[in-house]
Amino acid sequence: MSLDAQLLATFRDAGETPWTATDLADHLGVSRATITRHIDELRQLGFEIEHQAHLGYRVAAWPDLLLADDIQHRLGKAVIGRRVLVYAQTASTNDLVEKLALDGAAEGTVVFAESQTRGRGRQGRAWASPRGKGLWFSVLLRPKLPLNAAARLTIAASVAVARAIREQTGLSPGIKWPNDILIAGRKCGGILAELRSDLDAIQFVVLGIGLDVNCDSGDFPPDVRRVATSLKIEVARAAGSGLNTPPSRADLAVALLRELDRAYRLACGDDFDAVRREWGGLCSTLGKRVRLQAGPHRIEGHAQALDEDGALLVRRDNGRIERVVGGDVVMEK
Amino acid sequence: MSLDAQLLATFRDAGETPWTATDLADHLGVSRATITRHIDELRQLGFEIEHQAHLGYRVAAWPDLLLADDIQHRLGKAVIGRRVLVYAQTASTNDLVEKLALDGAAEGTVVFAESQTRGRGRQGRAWASPRGKGLWFSVLLRPKLPLNAAARLTIAASVAVARAIREQTGLSPGIKWPNDILIAGRKCGGILAELRSDLDAIQFVVLGIGLDVNCDSGDFPPDVRRVATSLKIEVARAAGSGLNTPPSRADLAVALLRELDRAYRLACGDDFDAVRREWGGLCSTLGKRVRLQAGPHRIEGHAQALDEDGALLVRRDNGRIERVVGGDVVMEK
Repeated sequence: MSLDAQLLATFRDAGETPWTATDLADHLGVSRATITRHIDELRQLGFEIEHQAHLGYRVAAWPDLLLADDIQHRLGKAVIGRRVLVYAQTASTNDLVEKLALDGAAEGTVVFAESQTRGRGRQGRAWASPRGKGLWFSVLLRPKLPLNAAARLTIAASVAVARAIREQTGLSPGIKWPNDILIAGRKCGGILAELRSDLDAIQFVVLGIGLDVNCDSGDFPPDVRRVATSLKIEVARAAGSGLNTPPSRADLAVALLRELDRAYRLACGDDFDAVRREWGGLCSTLGKRVRLQAGPHRIEGHAQALDEDGALLVRRDNGRIERVVGGDVVMEK
Repeated sequence: MSLDAQLLATFRDAGETPWTATDLADHLGVSRATITRHIDELRQLGFEIEHQAHLGYRVAAWPDLLLADDIQHRLGKAVIGRRVLVYAQTASTNDLVEKLALDGAAEGTVVFAESQTRGRGRQGRAWASPRGKGLWFSVLLRPKLPLNAAARLTIAASVAVARAIREQTGLSPGIKWPNDILIAGRKCGGILAELRSDLDAIQFVVLGIGLDVNCDSGDFPPDVRRVATSLKIEVARAAGSGLNTPPSRADLAVALLRELDRAYRLACGDDFDAVRREWGGLCSTLGKRVRLQAGPHRIEGHAQALDEDGALLVRRDNGRIERVVGGDVVMEK
């Protein structure tokens, strides 16, 4: 762990209580001069570090920054996030993680980008990823799952995103099948799972997650403005939630990766049922009459349940049950 | 089409009937000198081209060669094989076609290698691919199929391989689930489908096919010698089949790609049922009690049928039906 990450962890644990430079130097096993130099560096990154004579240093304000080493440290021994990289800009974090995967990167590698120039959503759609306004990241998974259970992963991921938002904002997100994250009916997050597989086993999955945190309405492309939202917009709207600023992206990132670690373990182990039940409680699509566009096929019927592989079971009017793993809800009523 | 391919097509159509150099020059729109130069080149490749005074040229013996341009021409307007490449040697044709796919190669691109240095079978097993002894090739597919129907492709491919062998040798190949090609209980061919997909659609599939044509028993690695065979071995064994030489690899390649084109169209269109029925007639696994190893899971029960997505339905003793898309048959009785 870098000294910056150790310093931040120490300040975080201390809360409002200040640390003297001498105590910090003792605690972290470096010289006083090194401590003051690193405190200057953190100030330059945007940390407001106050110093009171005789009492010492404390962080008065934490900037909305993603620091790879700090996030990785906060995740402890979790598999997801065992290696965290933060890029200022990349074309697409999914493409970047795919390259790492082909080079043999370990499961749980996570790449964030402050902005993406060619961010992708599902079905080849563009995903706007303005600088610093959200969490745009991809996670490398090497699940021991058969190919036909691949849909479990996006089910697990959407549950993890919803839980992290709820925990960090008090808002009540929902899920629109397959894995749009909605708040008050508007989309604030999406998931794109891309995989490489043969029919015997999945080789790896790149799980891309985009979450609009600080976007204002004007940050969204005009064609999605009516249906998109951000945590910032929804927190401001939610009078009575007791919160009026969105969570820091770093806190949200840590919460999200922790929840993902948990849901992923359940989905790959023998308790996908728990994830499926939770998804069912969050999903607006189940129990409704739906029309789905799945590739060239239009499927209309009653959205009954997820099966054990994470596929949606739709009962057509003729009684026939269709298993669907991808597509769009065109109509839901 | 190259002049060599045009010359070969002309000789093939003519059968035993010779062509004079002058007639060939008129027919193909080039000079007599060009014709004689190309005939010399074909002789150097191994074509025995006889010349009789006043009558002209005919091919007395066709070498067992894979000529990309000739194969491509013989396939006419089929999608599979619209572009054919033949490499003397490569590590793995699947890896090579994957690279072509990422660079945007068209559906139906086919790459043969005379030998592979790191040929792969299913489950990461090595696949021996000795020079000139078989058909080692990969086909790029861009099917408009949902991910959960990916197994249809290997079902279609195994039917195509079995049909081509039957047509070219008179032998009666069978299929062991999921897609081993067997003759008299021994394996002569295998299929490895690797794919890149998201949950909405398959991006592309690399379908690798290995078929032992001219292998002698000593060409097989010791650990598979008891269970492996080749068309040459089986043709020799099949007294009364009227044949004692295996087909030329080029004829077999053309037959196989034609059958694959047909089966692929059925599997992606609305007649996977026809492919499934044919597979059912060839497959030794259906209707038997089986034990399957699918990743970490062992599944034992009665192999009932393929479902509409190409997955094997196994009925366990407790009545529960399992859908399986990959794995190995450990026991079949």
